[in-house]
Amino acid sequence: MSAGAAASAERGVDVTLAALADPVRRRSVELLADRPHRAGELAAVLGVSAPVMSRHLRVLRTAELVEEEHPPYDARVRVYSLRAPPMRELKGWLADAETGWAEQLAAFKDHVERP
Amino acid sequence: MSAGAAASAERGVDVTLAALADPVRRRSVELLADRPHRAGELAAVLGVSAPVMSRHLRVLRTAELVEEEHPPYDARVRVYSLRAPPMRELKGWLADAETGWAEQLAAFKDHVERP
Repeated sequence: MSAGAAASAERGVDVTLAALADPVRRRSVELLADRPHRAGELAAVLGVSAPVMSRHLRVLRTAELVEEEHPPYDARVRVYSLRAPPMRELKGWLADAETGWAEQLAAFKDHVERP
Repeated sequence: MSAGAAASAERGVDVTLAALADPVRRRSVELLADRPHRAGELAAVLGVSAPVMSRHLRVLRTAELVEEEHPPYDARVRVYSLRAPPMRELKGWLADAETGWAEQLAAFKDHVERP
């Protein structure tokens, strides 16, 4: 990965974490992981008003965690679905942190077990 | 997992995400994944003042992402290290979302490939 790509992935993870750090948005991601939903369905399940839901969906779209589509039968309907790349980036970040952590524990184990 | 334990894990992931949704705190976690650090070392590497670092470390400790220890040779020194459980919970949440997502893609594939 180039330095530019790495920096952009870093920014991406920050944006993803900020977007997910809200219970309504995180719960939206859980619902969208099951199947695409309309904004109104999400608002009903999550117990928030349409304008509040719309604000949360805008944050999720800006973070590229969800995408909006209009079904061919009705251009006024907006259906939201989950996008995988930001979740994959966050997973990669956690895996990297875990690698450092595992090496640290292995080094500590070596140290205490040294005769 | 009992309903109570599940609800507490849910709250835990919210707290973890809120704690990580700040570049200084996320970078602190990366540094601590490598090895334990003193607050002063973290502040120096991250280019923040001691009071700012202290505030961020308090958030990370409240989220149980880091723990503070005093080395036996000097009770005034505070050394911070990473705690694995919140990272593991977040990883579990991502894996659950990914499972739903993978099932959705498989169902879609079945649907489009149906003769």
